[in-house]
Amino acid sequence: MTEAVSRPTLEAVAARAGVSRATVSRVVNGGDGVREPLAERVRRAVEELGYVPNQAARSLVTRRHDAVAVVIAEPETRVFADPFFALQLRGISKELTAHDNQLVLLLTEGRADHARVARYLAGGHVDGALVFSLHLDDPLPGLINDAGVPTVFGGRPGWSDDVRAEREPDAVYVDCDNRGGARTAVQHLLDLGRRHIAHITGALDQTSAVDRLDGYRDVLADAPGGGAPGLVAEGDFTPAGGERAMRELLDRCPHVDAVFAGNDLTALGALRVLREAGRRVPQDVAVVGFDDMTPVAEQTDPPLTTIRQDIEGMGRLMARLLLRGLCGDRAGEDAAAPEPGTAPAAVILPTTLVRRASA
Amino acid sequence: MTEAVSRPTLEAVAARAGVSRATVSRVVNGGDGVREPLAERVRRAVEELGYVPNQAARSLVTRRHDAVAVVIAEPETRVFADPFFALQLRGISKELTAHDNQLVLLLTEGRADHARVARYLAGGHVDGALVFSLHLDDPLPGLINDAGVPTVFGGRPGWSDDVRAEREPDAVYVDCDNRGGARTAVQHLLDLGRRHIAHITGALDQTSAVDRLDGYRDVLADAPGGGAPGLVAEGDFTPAGGERAMRELLDRCPHVDAVFAGNDLTALGALRVLREAGRRVPQDVAVVGFDDMTPVAEQTDPPLTTIRQDIEGMGRLMARLLLRGLCGDRAGEDAAAPEPGTAPAAVILPTTLVRRASA
Repeated sequence: MTEAVSRPTLEAVAARAGVSRATVSRVVNGGDGVREPLAERVRRAVEELGYVPNQAARSLVTRRHDAVAVVIAEPETRVFADPFFALQLRGISKELTAHDNQLVLLLTEGRADHARVARYLAGGHVDGALVFSLHLDDPLPGLINDAGVPTVFGGRPGWSDDVRAEREPDAVYVDCDNRGGARTAVQHLLDLGRRHIAHITGALDQTSAVDRLDGYRDVLADAPGGGAPGLVAEGDFTPAGGERAMRELLDRCPHVDAVFAGNDLTALGALRVLREAGRRVPQDVAVVGFDDMTPVAEQTDPPLTTIRQDIEGMGRLMARLLLRGLCGDRAGEDAAAPEPGTAPAAVILPTTLVRRASA
Repeated sequence: MTEAVSRPTLEAVAARAGVSRATVSRVVNGGDGVREPLAERVRRAVEELGYVPNQAARSLVTRRHDAVAVVIAEPETRVFADPFFALQLRGISKELTAHDNQLVLLLTEGRADHARVARYLAGGHVDGALVFSLHLDDPLPGLINDAGVPTVFGGRPGWSDDVRAEREPDAVYVDCDNRGGARTAVQHLLDLGRRHIAHITGALDQTSAVDRLDGYRDVLADAPGGGAPGLVAEGDFTPAGGERAMRELLDRCPHVDAVFAGNDLTALGALRVLREAGRRVPQDVAVVGFDDMTPVAEQTDPPLTTIRQDIEGMGRLMARLLLRGLCGDRAGEDAAAPEPGTAPAAVILPTTLVRRASA
């Protein structure tokens, strides 16, 4: 086993620079009150000895760790199979790196994990948290709330009813306009003259899936002839889920002429089943996805018409909102976000229809 | 912005329990010397107030954080596109969770990131580090060494020559038998009667790619007729790299009758190009991969003959070795690993040939 190498101490730096420990401490922690030739001597000694201030100790004084946790409440097999998370992390990582903050990724699955993650957050290792992928009635938001670190949620948190009233006003979250985007998708299919429009939902324990289903219902309830509630099948945001649901829909309603898929990965599975079944896309069945995830949406056969949300931009904005809260105006000056001091409970990002060949 | 909720203090717990701060501190930090009825009163007060000891403060005393960093030196787009990392993380995560340690994932790409990660490691937030995906002459191992936390490397570190002599004996690493596995693959192709055996390497700035290339050369140098050095093309461990290299090989040597691919993802790309070129696998060209990555290797067309390494098991073993060093025998008792006190510089895991249809 590698032994911990003994690190140069504050005392060693003080001795090398010929100053007191207090002087070293003041320089290292960026405080004022040390005149320049002296401060320079300390900095040189720090550099020569390779001194690293113990941040556990330093953070007790400065209360800053220059580190932000990203908490994703999904098993690692899901996180690593879905490019959605990679895109969000890229956005977050760019923003944190620009402000020299360390991204600390914590995955959590189930109650025992949640408690451990909350302990780590409460334990003085990060300055704040960005929390993703919340399921309805998940105890995680409550636990994170109790940990007492500034938090920005990605996606509308699925508070359970008993904590909603107490906590929701405090929760800042960033989401895309799931319901509005779904309406646009279904309206587009109606405008194409389709009359048997099915919806394959995402995992219905997630708020984004619920909101997209609501958008689908909004449009069909208002449409001449009304919606056909039998045309909804539950998927789970994966290609395999899309395949299962598409088979079920073809069985139940062979004359289906359009599908609004809960996300692009779901559409991928649906397209595969339609091809096997000999249905031409878009001539026989038009398909619209959600996300416009690169490179998935461009590489389907045929290329996918979908509802675009800016996944990377959402990650970047979440990081900006958190850093702004932590650092004041210095961070996130150019964020396309509300003014400091007027931070709202939610920032809803717009979605747009991207037309390709599938609808 | 969510405001930090003020947390109950040690003082509040002491007041509630009617004891001194020192007594609370001793109970909270698991120390002895507090008699039972008193200790129970403290524990009840801790629970009632929801007190969470500040671990930044506590860790100064106990020097334990119950957290282990996993450092991956790759951009997030690569990490999230390659199931290899997901499998390793699953192994690590299982082992750490079993010992109630928090997995803290840190990605790093380039020098500025490296320095920030080393600072976080040195800063008293984790008890040790598992470090992956080392490139030749990467400064990361040196920086992590200087950070002074116990470390286990995944894969042979690519020390530059000037630090090799000084550091290598200290570095514990876990790797699979890349060179031996490559020999098995090429020998299998020779045994099938193939005489124009090409190799598509991995990214040659990585030790695993270099070791596999050496294994390929070992066998062909000894083979009757000798090796054909012109039959090596450089890939990068991705399907796209496998496609590029396979096209190059077909151009340069149209009579190629076998390919040893640097890993399964590379084989995936090579199979695609062979199919386009009208070559039958295995009749015209036999293909062997490396990794036996689930589900990639089983789902290729035809199913892939490959060299199996236990990716998840490697992650689990790395975590065990680290925990054993940190905790003594308590952790990792059943690890298929050397006895404590005799930890070697390297643990090399065996590989096996898995025959499917492609060779």
